[in-house]
Parts: sequence; structure tokens; C-alpha cells
Amino acid sequence: MKILVLNCGSSSLKYQLIDMNNEEVLCIGLVERIGIDGSILKQEKDGVEGKLIKEEPMKNHQDAIKLVLEAVLHPEFGGVKEMSEIEAVGHRVVHGGEKFASSVLITEEVEKAIKECVDLAPLHNPANIMGIDACKAILPNVPMVAVFDTAFHQTMPKSSYLYGLPHELYTKYGVRRYGFHGTSHKYVSQRAAEMLGKDIKDLKIITCHLGNGASIAAVDGGKCIDTSMGFTPLEGLIMGTRCGDIDSAILPFLMQKEGLDADGLSNLMNKQSGVYGMTGISSDFRDIEGAAEKGDEKAQVALDAYVKKVQKYIGSYAAEMNGVDVVVFTAGVGENGIDLRGRIASNMEFLGMKLDEESNKVRGKERVISTTDSKVKMLLIPTNEELMIARDTLNLVK
Amino acid sequence: MKILVLNCGSSSLKYQLIDMNNEEVLCIGLVERIGIDGSILKQEKDGVEGKLIKEEPMKNHQDAIKLVLEAVLHPEFGGVKEMSEIEAVGHRVVHGGEKFASSVLITEEVEKAIKECVDLAPLHNPANIMGIDACKAILPNVPMVAVFDTAFHQTMPKSSYLYGLPHELYTKYGVRRYGFHGTSHKYVSQRAAEMLGKDIKDLKIITCHLGNGASIAAVDGGKCIDTSMGFTPLEGLIMGTRCGDIDSAILPFLMQKEGLDADGLSNLMNKQSGVYGMTGISSDFRDIEGAAEKGDEKAQVALDAYVKKVQKYIGSYAAEMNGVDVVVFTAGVGENGIDLRGRIASNMEFLGMKLDEESNKVRGKERVISTTDSKVKMLLIPTNEELMIARDTLNLVK
Repeated sequence: MKILVLNCGSSSLKYQLIDMNNEEVLCIGLVERIGIDGSILKQEKDGVEGKLIKEEPMKNHQDAIKLVLEAVLHPEFGGVKEMSEIEAVGHRVVHGGEKFASSVLITEEVEKAIKECVDLAPLHNPANIMGIDACKAILPNVPMVAVFDTAFHQTMPKSSYLYGLPHELYTKYGVRRYGFHGTSHKYVSQRAAEMLGKDIKDLKIITCHLGNGASIAAVDGGKCIDTSMGFTPLEGLIMGTRCGDIDSAILPFLMQKEGLDADGLSNLMNKQSGVYGMTGISSDFRDIEGAAEKGDEKAQVALDAYVKKVQKYIGSYAAEMNGVDVVVFTAGVGENGIDLRGRIASNMEFLGMKLDEESNKVRGKERVISTTDSKVKMLLIPTNEELMIARDTLNLVK
Repeated sequence: MKILVLNCGSSSLKYQLIDMNNEEVLCIGLVERIGIDGSILKQEKDGVEGKLIKEEPMKNHQDAIKLVLEAVLHPEFGGVKEMSEIEAVGHRVVHGGEKFASSVLITEEVEKAIKECVDLAPLHNPANIMGIDACKAILPNVPMVAVFDTAFHQTMPKSSYLYGLPHELYTKYGVRRYGFHGTSHKYVSQRAAEMLGKDIKDLKIITCHLGNGASIAAVDGGKCIDTSMGFTPLEGLIMGTRCGDIDSAILPFLMQKEGLDADGLSNLMNKQSGVYGMTGISSDFRDIEGAAEKGDEKAQVALDAYVKKVQKYIGSYAAEMNGVDVVVFTAGVGENGIDLRGRIASNMEFLGMKLDEESNKVRGKERVISTTDSKVKMLLIPTNEELMIARDTLNLVK
């Protein structure tokens, strides 16, 4: 079965066409500037040189998906000969609230429930819904599945997901920890158990998804029991442009000092902060590392703070599980940041983590990076959210 | 030398008169409702039955301190015969900002610097300044010392005290982690080393000050390297009425949903949250424990979340120090909450913490509560901020 995986943003769309017989990616593409001047689609096919590029006006997601379907039928860069070969579509949906603890076949009722979560993810869910609606119009008879970023974290106990806030805020508005990157945390934790030849039920795993957005999860026996992102993807680690954990009392202080309103505060914390805000240099960790090497003090402090924060979360999740067997690194920095990954994995011998410096010299490949005598196994596992979405889709439609 | 220790709040004042020859508390008292109808002073003396109670109008802190000085001269409940026996006054000051990394003899310049920190502690420093001014007027020739709640934490590295926020917020407004309860964390960490007969330089200590306000500190070789309270005393643990760590993006969400302004948010997070807000029952942990025993689910979850949060901080500070030798419990819940302390100290064997259940059955007494073979020593140490203030005062005036 061939499955189309769609990840719709407000003005962009990422997609992969995957043959589930062998989990081969037939083609992979990106559409940008949907509804804006200069709309463009770029598609690649493994083993074929060059790229398919289509610059055509796309006034909405329906236009974009039409073009995607033309592109996947392309004789050189495509992956199918007939539209009818696409037997299912898997949609990434950011927020499933408390309604979805797993992936689900999309029905009218499901779409309604996804719309009810818009309040919790006003920037993301509307785009996901546009993608779903567009597919429904163009491929009315193809089954679709929604895979939620929040679903994997729905196993957290109340003591992990309730904040120290008035209980009415939870019942009235759903203010609680949801967690994000769930598809990634689920994929790498399952893959870790496979790599080690162990039953995931017997493992205490800490998964570090360290990208421009970053989160950590504690996965005990295959179930998420805590994660660092919270009500929104702001909480937790220091990220590219997001502040992560701060003293929330800073906000009323800044409202009085700078006259910031809700949007101003959101913008400050989500777009102007993180290593970008700390350094004034960039949200890209490679730029921060470059500046630090040249002696920029702010860049050095930002990296130190970043590393420390990840280590502290590892320590706190070890406390929550009374130990840890496996630590997994994934996503941009986790897969490619040799130095940062090495620093995070160092000076953690108290937990039984021993880094193999040589093994750690690798980017984007599955590998054990701890020493053979390390009590805690440390793994580099490139994440693959698209494959996870395709697998969930297959399971629900077959 | 006899030293008067003063802890001035906005409408209250706590005091102790201490004989520094043997560190004996000569008398101890509390003034309430200063500047309000029904002002009252209550003073006790160790070994003397009953209490000295004075109900007299006190329109300001100067009136209150005049009455305190009369009271400490009381033949039965007092501690001195002549005013001149009081050779120094030690003042607790909440916020010393970055200006004070240790206690200091109060001069005009120091007073000015304390006033410059009012912005950072608008509810506390003004009351501390009123106390200093009142003493200066009544005891003009007695040397005074300021002991800051923030000072002990000034040894934190930048990577601990800078948030993932734009750097200008630090340079412009001093937005950073300061930490509080410093006098208590310093006292119990030093006392822990004494109790264990070790040099504090060789110890990694985690001090848990668990009162109605609560904070944890990582003390490496005698120096604080991190602490859970931040820019204000809101951050960190779940407290009686304070929320502790939350996703700060909840605030702009609530501003839009409930139209809260800066004061409304501060009030919500500082006064309506914590275990009180989570349960709607009380800010007193004994009431929450009582309700939980009777099967109240919210109370059970609040206690679970509280315990988990303390354990997570212990784990994270162990990560920061690459291990931990000593965990100290102090303040209200830490000294008296047998059950909660026991739960915090349990299921932490991965760190080498082994609770001695029998030894743990104690309130308010110095005691080792870990088993003899526990790698990490766990200690109950009643805090004594007043004695610490008196000692610092003595050191600076003698």
C-alpha cells in the first residue's frame, strides 16, 4: 500500500509518499508560500539526480495539494503511475487535546473534535484542518488518518500534567500539560528498544528531541509519563527562539515596564528568545557554536545554559522513573550536534552514563554512542515522524 | 554580645534577642497589624510560662520597634536590663539584587542600594527599609547589619542565573534568577557538614527548604550553584498558594480569556494557586493531607504532584553536580511533614538515597534519616535564619 503523508503548516506543506510494503520513501517534497506571492513546490526522489520545481500560484491548500498530486505522478520525480495507487493519506495534526490518545481514522466527528482544539493551538490546527479539507475535496474516496503530536503524551498521570494552578483553569479551559513532538518521542523510543533487542516494557527511556523546537520525554515501559513541553510548545528547554522555563512572574513585571499585551508577550517568548535572544546572533545552534569558538561570551553562556538544562531534565526524569536505562538523542541538534551531544552526555557518570567519544563522532545515523560498559545506553536515532504517521495510517486503514 | 534580630514585613515584625556568647535566644516575639487597627505584640521567653502581650496602637514600624525595645527590657519576659546591652541589630532584607553577595554593615550607601532593589521586591524591601529607618531613629549609635535572602545564591554561574530571554532584559531590568531563602540554605548546608564531621568543600549538598514558600538549592563545595526560586519567589516548587513552574504561555492565554492584567496575573499565581488552588481546600499541607486521607482526589493529586516536583529538582541538581552526597530537609513541611518527607525520600534508590523509615518518624529535630548504608546522607535540620543573621551581624560588628 502506498500512503501519502502530509504535514500542513499555515503557508507551507511537507509531504512524503511511502510504499508500506517495504517502507520505502518514493518521493519527498515541500510546498512553500501557499496563498502568498511566489508559491513553489520542490520534490525529490531518492536515487534520481536533480529536483522537480514547480513555481505556480497556489491561492490555498487545495491548490497546493492538487499540485502535490500532479507531482507524485511525475514520470521522473514521482512515485506512482495512477492516482488510484494512493490508498490512504496520513495527516500530522498538532493538537489533539484530551480527545485523542492515539491516531484515528478521520470522520466528520473527528474533524469536529480537531476544530474544537483550535483554541489550544491557534497557529497550527487551522492549517492541519485546511489540509484535511483539501484532501477530502480532491480525494473523496481515500481514507485519511490523523496522527497527533500530543497523543503519545496522553498516558501521563495527573501529577505530571496538572500545574500548580487553580483547578478551574483545567476544567474550564483545559489548562494542563499536553506535550508535543509525541510522534517523534514514540518513534525513537520504540526504535531504541528494537536496536537494543529489548522489550520496551522493561526499559526506562529518556528521549531528547533536540531541534529548533526541543522537548524531552520520560518513557517508562513504553508509556510517556512526563515531558518538558506543556500547555504549549513554549515550556521546557531553551530553544532556537523560545525561552523555555522561566519565572512566570517576569511577565507581569514586563507588562508594567514595557506595556506589553498578550501578543507582545507571546511574541517575545516564542520568537525573540531562546539562544537567539540570549546572544542576538542567530537561532541556529551552528552559528552560536561558531561565535562561542571565536570567544563570544554570550554565545558561550547560551550553550552552557542549553547543555545544563538538558542535563537537568535528564536528571529529573531519572528521578521520576527511579533510574534510566536508555537516553536517546534525535532531531537537528540531537542528530548532528556532535559537540553539544557530547557535552550533554558528559559529566553524568553519577547516573551511569559513559560517552564513547569516538562513537559520538557521527551525524544522522543510528548508533550507540555510549561505551560498552556504560550502565545507561546512549543512542543516536534519526527521528522519522513521517514513517510513524504512515505506519499508524496503515494500521488504521488496512 | 547581645544582638537584636529583626525581620520586618509590611504590617508585621518578627524579632529575637540573642546572646552571642552562647547563642542563647533570650526572648522571641512577633508584632502584628502595624499601622492597622488592633496592633498587638506577643513575646515569649524560654523557660518562662505565659506570654507578654501588648495591645497598643502602632501607627508605623517606629512605634512597633519602640514597643519591642520596651518588651525586651521587661523584667519577666525580657532579655536585657539596660537598652545599652543591645550592641547590634541584624536586619533580614529580602532582596539584595546583584549588589550584595554577602551580609554588610548598614551605611547610608548600603541603604541607598537596598532602596534601588525595591523594584525587584516591591512587597518586601520597603518594609525592610522601614525597619532599618525606625531602628536608626531609636538606636542611632547601635551598629546595624543587613542580611540578604538573595546573597547566598550570588555564587551561581551565568548559565544558572540567565534565562532563555533576550539579553537586554537582563542588562536593562536585571531580569535573572536571584533565588531566595538564602540564609536558610546557607545555614542548613553548613550545619549538615558539621553534623557529618566533613569539610563542606568536599560535599555536594541539596537543601530542600519546604515551607509554605519553598525552594531547593544545589550547594557544591559550600557554594550555591543553582536554586529553584528565580527572578521572584514564584518559580520552582508547588507551594501553599504559589504555582511554581508553569508554561509561561498560559499567561497570554489567560489574559485573552479572562482579561487579566498584570496585578490579576500576579494575584492568581501568587495567592490563588499552589496546593490551595489545586484543591480549593487550604494552603496548609496538613489540611491537604487530611483531605487526601479521606479520599479527596484533588488533594491526592496535589500531594503527588508536590512530591514529584521535589524529587525532580533533586534529580536535576544531582545532574548539575554529577552526583549528590547529602540531601537536607528543612522548614515547615521539611521539618514536620513525616509522610511527605518520607515520600520524597523514597523511590530514589537510583541516586543512592535510602530512607530509614524509623528515623524519619521525627519532627523538628536534627537527625540523620537515611539508613547507615545509604550512599546519600539525608538529614533533617531545623532551619534557624535568625541565628544565621545574628552570626553574620556579630562577624561584621565585632
